[in-house]
Amino acid sequence: MSAVSSDTAAYADRLARVRAAMEAQEIDVLLLSVGADLPWLTGYEAMPLERLTMLVAHRDGDATLVVPRLEAPRVVERPGVFTIRAWEETDDPVALVAALSGRAETAAIGDTTWARFVLELQREMPSTVFSRATAVTGALRAHKDAAEIEALRRAGAAADRVATALQGGDIALVGRTEAEVSAELSARLLAEGHHQVNFAIVAAGENAASPHHDASARVIRSGEVVLCDFGGTLDGYCSDITRCVSIGDPSPEVADAYAVLFEAQATAVKAATIGTPCEVVDGAARDIIAAAGFGENFIHRTGHGIGVEAHEDPYIVKGNAALLEHGHAFSIEPGIYLAGRFGLRLEDIVVATSAGPDAMNRVDHQLVVVEA
Amino acid sequence: MSAVSSDTAAYADRLARVRAAMEAQEIDVLLLSVGADLPWLTGYEAMPLERLTMLVAHRDGDATLVVPRLEAPRVVERPGVFTIRAWEETDDPVALVAALSGRAETAAIGDTTWARFVLELQREMPSTVFSRATAVTGALRAHKDAAEIEALRRAGAAADRVATALQGGDIALVGRTEAEVSAELSARLLAEGHHQVNFAIVAAGENAASPHHDASARVIRSGEVVLCDFGGTLDGYCSDITRCVSIGDPSPEVADAYAVLFEAQATAVKAATIGTPCEVVDGAARDIIAAAGFGENFIHRTGHGIGVEAHEDPYIVKGNAALLEHGHAFSIEPGIYLAGRFGLRLEDIVVATSAGPDAMNRVDHQLVVVEA
Repeated sequence: MSAVSSDTAAYADRLARVRAAMEAQEIDVLLLSVGADLPWLTGYEAMPLERLTMLVAHRDGDATLVVPRLEAPRVVERPGVFTIRAWEETDDPVALVAALSGRAETAAIGDTTWARFVLELQREMPSTVFSRATAVTGALRAHKDAAEIEALRRAGAAADRVATALQGGDIALVGRTEAEVSAELSARLLAEGHHQVNFAIVAAGENAASPHHDASARVIRSGEVVLCDFGGTLDGYCSDITRCVSIGDPSPEVADAYAVLFEAQATAVKAATIGTPCEVVDGAARDIIAAAGFGENFIHRTGHGIGVEAHEDPYIVKGNAALLEHGHAFSIEPGIYLAGRFGLRLEDIVVATSAGPDAMNRVDHQLVVVEA
Repeated sequence: MSAVSSDTAAYADRLARVRAAMEAQEIDVLLLSVGADLPWLTGYEAMPLERLTMLVAHRDGDATLVVPRLEAPRVVERPGVFTIRAWEETDDPVALVAALSGRAETAAIGDTTWARFVLELQREMPSTVFSRATAVTGALRAHKDAAEIEALRRAGAAADRVATALQGGDIALVGRTEAEVSAELSARLLAEGHHQVNFAIVAAGENAASPHHDASARVIRSGEVVLCDFGGTLDGYCSDITRCVSIGDPSPEVADAYAVLFEAQATAVKAATIGTPCEVVDGAARDIIAAAGFGENFIHRTGHGIGVEAHEDPYIVKGNAALLEHGHAFSIEPGIYLAGRFGLRLEDIVVATSAGPDAMNRVDHQLVVVEA
């Protein structure tokens, strides 16, 4: 999964830190299935299917990876980190996990574990109190070490090269559908070294007013602004960037709104220093946008953490008083959306460091004009 | 999501049948989030992110789709089926779902809903008993109507065209990596009309002994058998096919094992008639493989249901005494795996009908030899 931490010793170190967190939070057993916690801790990514894969990691004891027998050959063994327990098609993996959990009074279960397994485990372990694994893993995963920051930088640089092609007019827009441009962005992310593409939003004209618009069969026309928000996973760590381009000169209204967005984004990046509350960073962008009269048009938080998962702690949102710490990595991506007309967003990934905010994305932040 | 049931009336009909099932099972409220139940019932697919999307459907009352405000523009409204309730970034969507659920004593929650939301909803709704939504939706989804069967047939035909190219030698194998061949299979699935690719396993030589092998950087060599198991989603319904090809003539041992597999698969397809227990279909394949001495080498169930989801009810596995009914769609995919040496699997999608088993895949079932 991760070239950064592919050796068994690194996983063993993470497991030791997880056990310390379990100790502090009085969690007896950690149960991890589909999602990012498991590969972060073991190097193995569970298949998102109905056959249960689950790591059963005791605070004081062993860790066992319960895995369907037909998927066991996919697991890279990590002696000293976990042992493998393969189950047969006619076995009951929930009963197996419950038995391995022993007399656990408290269990922390992976955030994205399927509901069916939560309910079945609760029935099988009626005296165990279940809580979210993110309380154990979230803060640990949020602290990126030097190797992880370099992995984020490589992923960001690869995404930047795709954005450079977009801004340079190397990616044809006019007359193509959003979906076709999305497919080209995806292909370029892969060609630049990403292992997988996580999303490639392409939203033209009024479609960009929908922040999570699905790239559609809508044909892109001259004179429009096109919002592109794309990212993938490279060496186990995620990229995520948004740039808008204008096909021909933008209208004065769009140019004015973009100037506000540009200032808001740059100000929030500068504000993202160690010790600053996440919600203060959000406010730094929001205040500028609101002062310009677009407060109602900035309809989402300023950012999200990023790492092995595209969205993780810390969230840059009002109400999150947690302080930024060294090695926190997150997006800064304010937006201005006018329903039925246009939408603008500008996004970089930033890491909080003792030398100040360190941007993983360096490509031009202006509303670049490409030829019609 | 689905061209088959894109009109609001079809969704309203499904919701009526869901409510009847809720009545029969004494479920007060149905809670659906990420996964296949929601698009099957509403046409809307939730984004698999940390912002909660959840349909709150009362047995006796309204249905409300709780959705992040920034994703609300993605929703196609279905008047008379559900209303939309958008939540702001600083709202608590779990409290909103709990409030909308009212005094529900029983709630059925979507099988793939994230654990964090299950735990948070349980805390917010302490007197509600939660159970799996599949108990409500599973049997309904398993019964494909005529339009759904035709959608499965179109998806199967598209996958067959890719398999035909594989068997015809149009997809280069020798000297390429498994990953490169996987990428070509994926591209061909899209070119043949699939909306998305769900998987494209390519496993050469000894790698095929791992049934869920990840296509790797391993180079394919002359003289090897290559197992290809691929599928995607077309018009909202899934394809799934496995064919093996031999690069040059297979060894007598491989040819003999394949002959056993061929007979086992064909026999299980013939056994898949209305009224037959699922486990009897599994046994039809398993008995033949066991009689030939490969019982220990067939390490998975014979098949899984398929529809809007790649794996769903009914499962063709020992212990499942449920009877096949008209419109049940499922894979028949026995395999023979010799660790460290080779692996073989043969898979079709089959629909149980009053006229007998109806195969969605018709492409050659033999171990086709392609040129080295």
